[in-house]
Amino acid sequence: MPATDTTTSLRPLGQAAKHASRVLGPMRTPQKNDALLAIADELDDRADDVLAANAQDVEDGRANDLSDALLDRLLLTEQRVARLAQDVRRVAELPDPVGQDLDRRDLDNGMTLIRRRIPIGVLGVIYEARPNVTIDIAALSLKTGNAVILRGGSETLRSNLALVDVIQSALERTDVPRDAVQYIDNPDRALVTELLRMDEYVDMIIPRGGAGLHRLCREQSTIPVITGGIGICHIYVDEDAKLGQAVDIIENAKVQRPSVCNALDTLLVHRAVAPTLLPRVARRLAEHDVELRADEDAFALLKDGPAHVVPAGPDDFDQEWLALVLGIKVVDGLDAAIQHIQTHSTEHSDAILTTNQTHAAQFVDAINSAAVYVNASTRFTDGGEFGLGAEVAVSTQKLHARGPMGLEELTTYKWIGLGDGHVRS
Amino acid sequence: MPATDTTTSLRPLGQAAKHASRVLGPMRTPQKNDALLAIADELDDRADDVLAANAQDVEDGRANDLSDALLDRLLLTEQRVARLAQDVRRVAELPDPVGQDLDRRDLDNGMTLIRRRIPIGVLGVIYEARPNVTIDIAALSLKTGNAVILRGGSETLRSNLALVDVIQSALERTDVPRDAVQYIDNPDRALVTELLRMDEYVDMIIPRGGAGLHRLCREQSTIPVITGGIGICHIYVDEDAKLGQAVDIIENAKVQRPSVCNALDTLLVHRAVAPTLLPRVARRLAEHDVELRADEDAFALLKDGPAHVVPAGPDDFDQEWLALVLGIKVVDGLDAAIQHIQTHSTEHSDAILTTNQTHAAQFVDAINSAAVYVNASTRFTDGGEFGLGAEVAVSTQKLHARGPMGLEELTTYKWIGLGDGHVRS
Repeated sequence: MPATDTTTSLRPLGQAAKHASRVLGPMRTPQKNDALLAIADELDDRADDVLAANAQDVEDGRANDLSDALLDRLLLTEQRVARLAQDVRRVAELPDPVGQDLDRRDLDNGMTLIRRRIPIGVLGVIYEARPNVTIDIAALSLKTGNAVILRGGSETLRSNLALVDVIQSALERTDVPRDAVQYIDNPDRALVTELLRMDEYVDMIIPRGGAGLHRLCREQSTIPVITGGIGICHIYVDEDAKLGQAVDIIENAKVQRPSVCNALDTLLVHRAVAPTLLPRVARRLAEHDVELRADEDAFALLKDGPAHVVPAGPDDFDQEWLALVLGIKVVDGLDAAIQHIQTHSTEHSDAILTTNQTHAAQFVDAINSAAVYVNASTRFTDGGEFGLGAEVAVSTQKLHARGPMGLEELTTYKWIGLGDGHVRS
Repeated sequence: MPATDTTTSLRPLGQAAKHASRVLGPMRTPQKNDALLAIADELDDRADDVLAANAQDVEDGRANDLSDALLDRLLLTEQRVARLAQDVRRVAELPDPVGQDLDRRDLDNGMTLIRRRIPIGVLGVIYEARPNVTIDIAALSLKTGNAVILRGGSETLRSNLALVDVIQSALERTDVPRDAVQYIDNPDRALVTELLRMDEYVDMIIPRGGAGLHRLCREQSTIPVITGGIGICHIYVDEDAKLGQAVDIIENAKVQRPSVCNALDTLLVHRAVAPTLLPRVARRLAEHDVELRADEDAFALLKDGPAHVVPAGPDDFDQEWLALVLGIKVVDGLDAAIQHIQTHSTEHSDAILTTNQTHAAQFVDAINSAAVYVNASTRFTDGGEFGLGAEVAVSTQKLHARGPMGLEELTTYKWIGLGDGHVRS
């Protein structure tokens, strides 16, 4: 296992990554898949090394009073490592988007014009606690012919280094250069800034973490950044919604996994159905100990019920809760709901519940979030659920990719013009 | 016509643009086309106002000793204004990409999942001398449902303000809000930096200008930027090229329009054909007074010929000439050519001339420029030539769009999930 703190300047990593990407980029699918299978096997063979490193991270985490939730996120078990290896094998089975011709046609002048998918080149990925991201992102990058420079959280440094050592050792037995996957092993934050400005070598930055990390990347990076993963998600229950269905959807969106970006943050309810619906919602959510932050109208309807309800504060409709808390507001109708969402949404996932087709269409037209739902939970915004076979990140920006990003979103294209002495007139 | 220097903070422009984009975005194609036709008519009707403003810009330009080439770029004539109006009418005739469903399928759980093209939102476009860009970009933005904030060069301020006044007056007679097209009328450069950081309101920055402007945008912008338009373009003549064809292609790529980004900058020639080919190239280029910057081997072959040839300096293979100058280098073969291009190219447009299909395929695989040609001139990298119907910019970055950007590249997409009480299990 490599010693820590060897990285003091990223230029050599950048150069090595660029070089590796030029070797890896044109490789055929079987060569890349062989490398993935080698990584999976090595992970199985050396699970003990990984678990030993992880045990140290967990021990440090306990000593540093990390929360139980965080400790669970960074914990690897025999079973979890085995599943990581299986995940890598599944990536090997996915279709390879690289080399696909997006279109091909003959121009009037006789030149054949092709638009062909190619790797992006070198990816820089900055992420937080979970060590499984190290394996996931490395596998998805290799599958798409991209070299990657990884920078994980300091809480999982030892686990990540063990995993990268597994990856690099495996790659040495394959055609893929070892430097196709590199890790920044120095936890100095100045190196993050250096990575963000190394546009000579790095083609895309993917931050996976909280709002602060995304802001840092937007502010500092001279490399195109995929921002996202922050979801202030809304459900609007219209006058004509099926109320039983609405209660089920709201429960699912809020409590099925409250810590993730596509969980529900704010419930908007049409005034006409609020007196009937809100007490039912409150009863259901009380079973899960959800705290309700209600606007004046909603509070009046809920204050005597079983739920823990408090009056909403001025910032409560601009929160991504990531916890069992829900903002609730009564609105006068569709227009007010749209206006509230346009003002407060982070354009991640928003839903309308209605049987009125005209209202559904108006909502879908007006709300330009990455994912917009009609009569469904916001929790579906996910690469797996959308059938992408993988998920690199969830983008909420407008360029390149929106919503769940799979393998295709790790590619770009080039135009190829095949002529026979063609000159422009 | 609005007075100049009224803009001291861009926030009101940003807010107005965001608001306009929400009204414009969901509009149907006929509404947007009506607005385009109104602009074209207004341009015809008020050509005199535009020409009067332009005459002042030209007068100032002469007083400020602008070059004849620059003066010609900023000059508008009756004919040029009429052509601008025609260009707007042609944009109205183009198919509208907004609202297209990129794909639509039923998931296993019964939910219908649609990926639908939508406008990007608010564009910020920063450009240099040509006033026709004002009309072009406004028309392409409106067609794709995007609001736009324009910032042109100070040399054409009066012309641009006159054109924007024409646009806004025309829009007032249509459904499209007047603020869908706005102009930063204060030439203070600090406002450019403010624009680049107004990520709350602006979704994409398109710089159209030199390397310095692109660098500024990459360094300062917190908004995704489309960089490009800088082309150090190469042609590699392989051992098995048709030499007569090669001379024609090189001439076309270098002299047909030397001031543009897809013009040839560096010629690489296989050692085996250099003695035959280079004197023929030099003779042809001498007819156009092209200055040759030749490496040692090429200089030896050319020094006694008719062309103006000088030994290449150390930076001469890292120049985008934009003029009748050409770098020439003799290489040992395909690998050396690929390596030179990978080191010096800006990934805009590069070509191989060869009859060897294996070499052509190797070149196309290894060179990941936005456009890669076999036996054709680099000059084809253009939205019109590629059949896109329009050109917003030429991207050389990897994200979102590469090469010529047409209407589709001014759009993004959202995912739409249509359910009937769907919850995630």
